[in-house]
Amino acid sequence: MKVAVVGLGYWGPNLVRNFVSSENVSQVFCCDLDPQRVKHITKQFPNVKALSSFEAVLDSDCDAVAIVTPISMHYNLAKQVLERGKHVLVEKPLASSARECDDLIQCADRKKLVLMVDHTFIYTGAVRKIKEIVDRGDVGDLYYLDSVRVNLGMFQHDVNVLWDLAPHDLSIMDYVIGKLPEAVSAVAVNHYNHQEDVAYLILHYGQNIIAHIHVNWLAPVKIRRMLIGGSKKMVVFDDMEPSEKVKIYDSGVKVVTREGIYRTLVEYRTGDMFAPKLDQAEALTLVVKDFVNAISTGKKPVADGCAGWRVVRILEAAEQSLKQSGALVHL
Amino acid sequence: MKVAVVGLGYWGPNLVRNFVSSENVSQVFCCDLDPQRVKHITKQFPNVKALSSFEAVLDSDCDAVAIVTPISMHYNLAKQVLERGKHVLVEKPLASSARECDDLIQCADRKKLVLMVDHTFIYTGAVRKIKEIVDRGDVGDLYYLDSVRVNLGMFQHDVNVLWDLAPHDLSIMDYVIGKLPEAVSAVAVNHYNHQEDVAYLILHYGQNIIAHIHVNWLAPVKIRRMLIGGSKKMVVFDDMEPSEKVKIYDSGVKVVTREGIYRTLVEYRTGDMFAPKLDQAEALTLVVKDFVNAISTGKKPVADGCAGWRVVRILEAAEQSLKQSGALVHL
Amino acid sequence: MKVAVVGLGYWGPNLVRNFVSSENVSQVFCCDLDPQRVKHITKQFPNVKALSSFEAVLDSDCDAVAIVTPISMHYNLAKQVLERGKHVLVEKPLASSARECDDLIQCADRKKLVLMVDHTFIYTGAVRKIKEIVDRGDVGDLYYLDSVRVNLGMFQHDVNVLWDLAPHDLSIMDYVIGKLPEAVSAVAVNHYNHQEDVAYLILHYGQNIIAHIHVNWLAPVKIRRMLIGGSKKMVVFDDMEPSEKVKIYDSGVKVVTREGIYRTLVEYRTGDMFAPKLDQAEALTLVVKDFVNAISTGKKPVADGCAGWRVVRILEAAEQSLKQSGALVHL
Amino acid sequence: MKVAVVGLGYWGPNLVRNFVSSENVSQVFCCDLDPQRVKHITKQFPNVKALSSFEAVLDSDCDAVAIVTPISMHYNLAKQVLERGKHVLVEKPLASSARECDDLIQCADRKKLVLMVDHTFIYTGAVRKIKEIVDRGDVGDLYYLDSVRVNLGMFQHDVNVLWDLAPHDLSIMDYVIGKLPEAVSAVAVNHYNHQEDVAYLILHYGQNIIAHIHVNWLAPVKIRRMLIGGSKKMVVFDDMEPSEKVKIYDSGVKVVTREGIYRTLVEYRTGDMFAPKLDQAEALTLVVKDFVNAISTGKKPVADGCAGWRVVRILEAAEQSLKQSGALVHL
Repeated sequence: MKVAVVGLGYWGPNLVRNFVSSENVSQVFCCDLDPQRVKHITKQFPNVKALSSFEAVLDSDCDAVAIVTPISMHYNLAKQVLERGKHVLVEKPLASSARECDDLIQCADRKKLVLMVDHTFIYTGAVRKIKEIVDRGDVGDLYYLDSVRVNLGMFQHDVNVLWDLAPHDLSIMDYVIGKLPEAVSAVAVNHYNHQEDVAYLILHYGQNIIAHIHVNWLAPVKIRRMLIGGSKKMVVFDDMEPSEKVKIYDSGVKVVTREGIYRTLVEYRTGDMFAPKLDQAEALTLVVKDFVNAISTGKKPVADGCAGWRVVRILEAAEQSLKQSGALVHL
Repeated sequence: MKVAVVGLGYWGPNLVRNFVSSENVSQVFCCDLDPQRVKHITKQFPNVKALSSFEAVLDSDCDAVAIVTPISMHYNLAKQVLERGKHVLVEKPLASSARECDDLIQCADRKKLVLMVDHTFIYTGAVRKIKEIVDRGDVGDLYYLDSVRVNLGMFQHDVNVLWDLAPHDLSIMDYVIGKLPEAVSAVAVNHYNHQEDVAYLILHYGQNIIAHIHVNWLAPVKIRRMLIGGSKKMVVFDDMEPSEKVKIYDSGVKVVTREGIYRTLVEYRTGDMFAPKLDQAEALTLVVKDFVNAISTGKKPVADGCAGWRVVRILEAAEQSLKQSGALVHL
Repeated sequence: MKVAVVGLGYWGPNLVRNFVSSENVSQVFCCDLDPQRVKHITKQFPNVKALSSFEAVLDSDCDAVAIVTPISMHYNLAKQVLERGKHVLVEKPLASSARECDDLIQCADRKKLVLMVDHTFIYTGAVRKIKEIVDRGDVGDLYYLDSVRVNLGMFQHDVNVLWDLAPHDLSIMDYVIGKLPEAVSAVAVNHYNHQEDVAYLILHYGQNIIAHIHVNWLAPVKIRRMLIGGSKKMVVFDDMEPSEKVKIYDSGVKVVTREGIYRTLVEYRTGDMFAPKLDQAEALTLVVKDFVNAISTGKKPVADGCAGWRVVRILEAAEQSLKQSGALVHL
Repeated sequence: MKVAVVGLGYWGPNLVRNFVSSENVSQVFCCDLDPQRVKHITKQFPNVKALSSFEAVLDSDCDAVAIVTPISMHYNLAKQVLERGKHVLVEKPLASSARECDDLIQCADRKKLVLMVDHTFIYTGAVRKIKEIVDRGDVGDLYYLDSVRVNLGMFQHDVNVLWDLAPHDLSIMDYVIGKLPEAVSAVAVNHYNHQEDVAYLILHYGQNIIAHIHVNWLAPVKIRRMLIGGSKKMVVFDDMEPSEKVKIYDSGVKVVTREGIYRTLVEYRTGDMFAPKLDQAEALTLVVKDFVNAISTGKKPVADGCAGWRVVRILEAAEQSLKQSGALVHL
């Protein structure tokens, strides 16, 4: 199988490296508007072949293309790739609108091609472990998911902090909860006459399940923490911990009816904590494996076009909400 | 000066202890509906005199009363105290509505009595240091304040998590920013057919200053962290740190105009970090001192009735918002 | 039962508070050379009766005495207490020499009195849990215990850092391992023409079990961490953690024979981590309970005179070693 | 300049990568007994040329050789390299004995070749910052250095934990203190009928300066922390911190003479803490730069043969001490 990587900015070189290491990939092509970036890659990976333009990629004999460009270009490039009969892996978020995602999904279906989105986080050992314990019922009924993803970040020129960072949290929540929220609201602020740099997003899933995301390019410290509360267990996923990224707390609340004006009606207990061993494999290696496997076998990748659509659908609703000062937007 | 403490639940005994230690207080009275609690206090502090009822407190020769009861009783009890010509210190939040606060303020003014609210946090060394550096201009223009106050908490029988925990954050923000927000929105969820146990609150201060508060009774870990972003410096106040609770980061963003589709428009730099020495005095000791001093000298305490009113005004608006699914409520 | 507390410095008031709260203690006396300290206690605990001198304590009708004075006075005071037919609880370390401890043990035995040493740490939920899992065989064969107890500490006028801080670690190790080491070596340095302020202590237990203690009055950060390595499990006891003080690691090494010059001969694996719920009771409350119970029932307390002797015996040997530049001293 | 890397185990590939990226290196050769390792490198770096044996390296036209083999081979290989008139960079520790180091130094001197040891840590931003503040006198008189370097480690087949891990700490201490200790003692234990896996090392520098190192292959958690105490400031270097690796505490002790038997003679104060911004450059890149620069200009590298000798001299003395149960060995 021959694969081309289009876009060699921050993330593209990681995909190049993983395709180069993949046993099922015989040739990796690369392409970028900036000749410096191309040169940097071909110096490091001399077997990777540079192509001079996106047209050259389309004209090449590659079987699949990874699109790792700014978000605004995702749809247009991916569409052309599919129309040329090649499989496509698109950097998150899949496209700039749900309509665009829809169009890509239909195009891939029609042509029987693989359309996959690079939701890297759902391939990590941590998130797969969380999915496993939620699915097994260990956590009980889900109560809330709360994610904080903040640091002093690079401003993106073409999207705000919501479209830049929240796809990570949304893809994790989509994977764990397994359904679209019913309604969304979002508030964001722009401090540099530029894109919004601080944003808060609330997802209402019905049945009192709520999710909240805080994304921020202006925080002095790097925080990557998701809390998941359930009726039986609670989970803390702290991605900044060198080990013990996932902690499962045997603590919870127990409803106790009591009398007296000073009394509490609910008691809490704190029990044991357990930090399971996590698979240490690089998530992107598994992304590439799932993509290559989907092409070979026809089996849907976990992060398929529909997963990409769901995340973009939420982002779109959030964007609409933040333009209306946080008004609730139903999906 | 003689002082009575009404309500000996979780917080009341701390006030008793501090009044007992105060040099300007010659006699401390106490009172609670539960004789066990009274007995527990008088065993520990045999010089504290128990009074059998709130009426007995009003009839006693005490000069001032501290109200440390459930929130729903604050207004009624404080009002009676003021009408009997005694000074009053009320546990946070000052009352259940802004109108009640207003009435207490006017009553105290009319009678020339001290009305103070126990906003303990603004008397901590940490928050006073933050106030100092913000006032000195070190932080530059304020961009955002983000506070997380979560843990496995005792459910209150008469208020939700917003009225229970957010007064801490709101009193800190009020103290640091020094003005009311223009509008407020809040979302909260109730998982136990009881009071809301998870809540998110957004405050819009105008000029792109935003504040956000996450309060939660259902979190497996205790987090007490406020981030403050400014144009010059950024501050992290982590109250769970045994030392170094306040860290000031010399980091910030610098707007850089560049060209090219892949380029970022804003660069970030990370510089030195500085953790100033903080005054270790117990905050409640300073609350008591400010109260006693206000009574003796007539000087307004820092946490006066108006500070209490502002916090309740925001809570009231937040409560209104959460009943309208997070709709923006203008103040 | 009536109890007297002699010495109201840093630790004495905590014993007073716990005796006052004990249901089996009807009267608490106190005594200190400094009238200010006495006054401070009787203001806080008006039911505690001050006695003017140690002789007055001996002459009083108290049944038991707690000695919480500088170490150099332990033996002399405790001896007089026992000779007057009163039970005695002595602050750690029990005395200044093993010979003194011996004498106290014999005296108590002869008079059928309780002699107990306040090894507070072995009554904590954390250490009791560690003891439980080691005794149950979960840890497997013990390999090493490594304890770091450092911070910017108050210099003691009459003892060095070894006698001040190491009794904590030695009492824990004595409790967990259950036997005396075979040999001891120690090195310490004195930077202020005063007592040694940094010390390292090694205990050889035979069968390749080694223990190491680092105590330090000159450290900028407070560290209280003990590592316990065993053939099956490893334990980290971090007393600075607000919760999760004890973590048990399912990790260990597995001997694998392999060939080749670059190969390792032992493989390691990292598995799950487990932080058990710990009893939150105040350790000193359990110390007081064990003491009171030993007096009432005649049952030996856990921290009896022999435990006190073993800790002092090691300190004595360590002191001898550090005067010989760290030479090995056999016990 | 042409450079060969001999040994492609854990560390060798990092040197290959850095030589490949060096502007002054036109050709990189590599060599390993294991053809798999060679293949892995040449797949990743197709421009790197594989040589079939060490003899082929000696026969090649390379100007310099990096020896990254097991320690027991360092001397023999480095000696041959120098005798062939090529410069040499040797993985730490430089050799198995001080005599071997001596011989290499003399050989390099005679032939006017560069002999450098890869003491990577002294090229980190953290250690260079510590060196800077100690040299500037900020820390005042040095009191102690205490280093803990423990984790669940790979057992080395040919050396014990002391020779494997302690060179890091010793090279840092050598760089910061700038002189040999006067005497050394060491204790180590072997739990697997193999090499010692836990070791403690004490260095006496005279004038009450003491250094201590704890290295351990059997620890459940990874700790990399050095405390440096001085008369003016204290430093914590925690290499596991993602940022803020170096913290400088404005705290210290102040000798105060007071009277009274309970009084302390030394008071402590805790002041501000400061975490300076550190250079983020990869240390190994600077090692390679220093090596290449030394070859080009004749300027001594920071980690020259003598630095390598000093570290090995201490290891040798420590080895001697641990065979004598920790007896003091004078240097």
